Amino acid sequence: MPEAFNARLRAVQRRTGSALCVGLDVDPVRLPAGLSQDHYGFERFVRGIIDATTDLVCAYKPNLAFYEATGEHSYRLLRATLDAIPSDVISIADAKRGDIGTTAERYAAAIFDGLGFDAMTVNPYQGSDSVEPYLRDPERGAFVLCKTSNPGSADFQDVRSPDTDGEALWESVARRALDWNASGNVGLVVGATYPEQLTRVRALAPELPILIPGVGTQGGDAAESMLRGASADGTLAVINVSRQVLYASSGSDWQEAARREAQSLRDAMRGAGNASPAERS
Amino acid sequence: MPEAFNARLRAVQRRTGSALCVGLDVDPVRLPAGLSQDHYGFERFVRGIIDATTDLVCAYKPNLAFYEATGEHSYRLLRATLDAIPSDVISIADAKRGDIGTTAERYAAAIFDGLGFDAMTVNPYQGSDSVEPYLRDPERGAFVLCKTSNPGSADFQDVRSPDTDGEALWESVARRALDWNASGNVGLVVGATYPEQLTRVRALAPELPILIPGVGTQGGDAAESMLRGASADGTLAVINVSRQVLYASSGSDWQEAARREAQSLRDAMRGAGNASPAERS
Repeated sequence: MPEAFNARLRAVQRRTGSALCVGLDVDPVRLPAGLSQDHYGFERFVRGIIDATTDLVCAYKPNLAFYEATGEHSYRLLRATLDAIPSDVISIADAKRGDIGTTAERYAAAIFDGLGFDAMTVNPYQGSDSVEPYLRDPERGAFVLCKTSNPGSADFQDVRSPDTDGEALWESVARRALDWNASGNVGLVVGATYPEQLTRVRALAPELPILIPGVGTQGGDAAESMLRGASADGTLAVINVSRQVLYASSGSDWQEAARREAQSLRDAMRGAGNASPAERS
Repeated sequence: MPEAFNARLRAVQRRTGSALCVGLDVDPVRLPAGLSQDHYGFERFVRGIIDATTDLVCAYKPNLAFYEATGEHSYRLLRATLDAIPSDVISIADAKRGDIGTTAERYAAAIFDGLGFDAMTVNPYQGSDSVEPYLRDPERGAFVLCKTSNPGSADFQDVRSPDTDGEALWESVARRALDWNASGNVGLVVGATYPEQLTRVRALAPELPILIPGVGTQGGDAAESMLRGASADGTLAVINVSRQVLYASSGSDWQEAARREAQSLRDAMRGAGNASPAERS
């Protein structure tokens, strides 16, 4: 029987000893020296970043917006990226798709079946029947937006309701995610910029993967995210860092610089993950 | 000075006398007789539907999921679709994108600047700062998901909070949309399957466009949607119908059948739109 996504993620994290996910938010105008600011440079850069960091990560997270902005090159660049990601680490499409019925099925078909991503990010605003189509294949994971890293996440996600015993919307989403996880392939997205909420989500959902963006440029801390976000066995926190790794150097040493940054982040997460339960609480 | 999106939509609806938006949810396996079930058939079908209905609609709404599911053909099919939509009707990308900062900027760049859509659908779960990047060009419109047409929309959108005087989340979104509309380019999405909520949103936001999906296959009624969703002058309801028009016939008369269906829907909406204020309330 094929392994469900969450079990596979845990196994990959145990093997690699890494909670680091490198986010591929590739902006052609920010490419380092020596790369052309077009789709050729984009592809060389993505391949170079993956080559330089592949033994340090549990996952890569291509950000589909940056691909789509390249227009006619989008599909080919996505294919090239997926070809470069080794099959023994996880690929997560940061797509934040959300829609219903046949439309959601088509997004899942495009991202899982067509492109071959292992997982994707999903927006829960439209409710359970909008999430379900992304969960039909147990081998593919859906990371559902819960408490996102941006300041505006307060606007709707923090709204508290007596309908849910005074819990915030993001807590209701975390609870629903437990129900959705019947096949073992649901995760949540919680920003590193909201450490208390991260602790709370881990308590509500002890066995769900949590994808944690917001480390680095946005102000979240890698070690603290690990302490708060990892499950009891030190796995299931997937801590994403994008710009801090990608743009570690704008010079010709960009690969070495990205590797150094990734290693330092991986080690900081590992140190926190090895903390004893007493230290962690 | 260029016209803001909402004013342009109103002008297009006055000129065409139509509130009908035809949704382009093209499933290659549902193409009518005589068309190949591949990207060639997809393109011929889209062009044929647009040719057959262009004088009957105010807008077309390509559903990006169905394009993306064609993989490598996606970008070219989107371009071909936009080339086929006359510049004097509105093109709406049903994309339901939502993300923050530079990512949202890249989605807006891909859909507005790259592809040239007039408007797109946007998911508000991540809050104000996730919607703002889609609003920077007053000529481009953002239809923000408010109360969606599916049963699962109750899960989170209907949650009531004392923080907002007991209003549901979808009502809070509608109120926020009024603030976001400083440049006259924000609309809302409310399902035809929730007529009372549609009336309420129109009351809360008398001058915002409302994109109304869910007519036909999902059970919503075209005339009722017009009565409840149009503004006082009979404009600003954009009533989407997809499958009922696209798949009106599976035979070789698919263009005539689509035209007949579109005409009947347009006329039903027009009749309701011409109702006197007394009849409408």
